[in-house]
Amino acid sequence: MRTIFKPGTMLYPIPAVMVSCGNATDGYNIITIAWTGTICSDPAMCYISVRPNRYSHDIIKQNGDFFINLVNRDLAQAADWCGVKSGRDVNKFQAMHLTPVHFDGMNAPYIKESPLSIACKVQQIIELGSHDMFIAQVTHVLADNQYMDPRTDKFRLEDADLIAYNHGSYCLLGKKIGKFGWSVEKKKKAKKS
Amino acid sequence: MRTIFKPGTMLYPIPAVMVSCGNATDGYNIITIAWTGTICSDPAMCYISVRPNRYSHDIIKQNGDFFINLVNRDLAQAADWCGVKSGRDVNKFQAMHLTPVHFDGMNAPYIKESPLSIACKVQQIIELGSHDMFIAQVTHVLADNQYMDPRTDKFRLEDADLIAYNHGSYCLLGKKIGKFGWSVEKKKKAKKS
Repeated sequence: MRTIFKPGTMLYPIPAVMVSCGNATDGYNIITIAWTGTICSDPAMCYISVRPNRYSHDIIKQNGDFFINLVNRDLAQAADWCGVKSGRDVNKFQAMHLTPVHFDGMNAPYIKESPLSIACKVQQIIELGSHDMFIAQVTHVLADNQYMDPRTDKFRLEDADLIAYNHGSYCLLGKKIGKFGWSVEKKKKAKKS
Repeated sequence: MRTIFKPGTMLYPIPAVMVSCGNATDGYNIITIAWTGTICSDPAMCYISVRPNRYSHDIIKQNGDFFINLVNRDLAQAADWCGVKSGRDVNKFQAMHLTPVHFDGMNAPYIKESPLSIACKVQQIIELGSHDMFIAQVTHVLADNQYMDPRTDKFRLEDADLIAYNHGSYCLLGKKIGKFGWSVEKKKKAKKS
C-alpha cells in the first residue's frame, strides 16, 4: 500500500557540494548545494539550482564561472555551515579556514581542501520558480594528488571519503555492494573440488 | 598539488534510480538513470538525462510522463540490470519480477517494489549533446507504507536502505555524521557535575 504525498523533493541520496565563486577584486564565496547533478556526458555538463536571493546567485551570474567542490568527511561540517550562513555577513573561506585557489581562465576559485573540484562555465540560466537552474559546461576536473593512483594514473574517488545527503542528513558511504554491470557478469566457474 | 583532467563526469555520489515509463497498450519499460536530480523546490521539479538512442527516450517523449523510483538494497541488482539491458530485447518488469502499477492521471506505471516513487510530467526536453535532459514537474510522491511512521505520519527515508552510485560502484549509505544545520546548533550546556 502507498501513501500519496503532494509534490515534494524526495529524490535521495544526493551529493552535497560546496560551490565556490567570485573573483579576487570583489571577494570569494562558497554556497553549499544539493540540487546539483550531471546532465550530459559529452560534452560533460553539470547544473546547480540556486535561489535568486542567495548571495552567490548574482556572483555566479555576473562572473559566469563556478567550481563544484566535492565534500568529504573532513569538510562536512564546513559544508553544512556554508549552506546555512550568508556570504553577505561573513567571509566563509576565512571563517572555515579554507583556501581559495585561482585557476587560469576561471572567474572563480576552487577550494584547496576539497578532494576534487569541477570547473564549470555557465551556458544558460533557466528560471523555474523558487530556484534558477544554472546549466554549465565542465572545462576541467582538478583532482587532489593524494587520491591519484601512481600505478594507473587514475583518481581513486572511492578513497576520498565522500558524503551523501539523505533527506536532511549527511551520511558517509557504506559497504560497496556491486559495480556497474555486475548483474550481467558471468559467474566464476565453481572451483573444482 | 592537483592533477588536471579533461572535462569529465565526476560529480559523486549520486542517486541511481529506476525510471519507469510506457503505457498498458504499448508496454512498460524501466531504465536506470544516474544523471538525475532535483532542480526546483517550489514547484517541485526533477530532471533525468537520457541518450536519444535509449529505448525509453522516445517512450517518455511520446507519453510525457515517467516515475522516478528510488532504489534500495533489495533492488540494486535489478537496477544495474535495467541499466545494462534494453527494453527492445526484453520485458524488464517480467525478467526482474517487478510489478508495474497504474496510477490515475499518469501515462507511466510506478514500480511496486520501490520504497518511494516520484510522479513526473515532462515540461521541456533540452538537447545537450550525448544526452537529452527531460525537465519535469513532480505531481505526486508515492511512499511505501512500510516506511511510514504511524506516530508522525512522516516517511522514514532513512529506514529505506537506499543506495548511492559512486564512480561506477553501488554503495549502501553508512554512518550518519550530522543533520542539516548541525554546524550552527547551540552546544548543549555542560552537565553540572
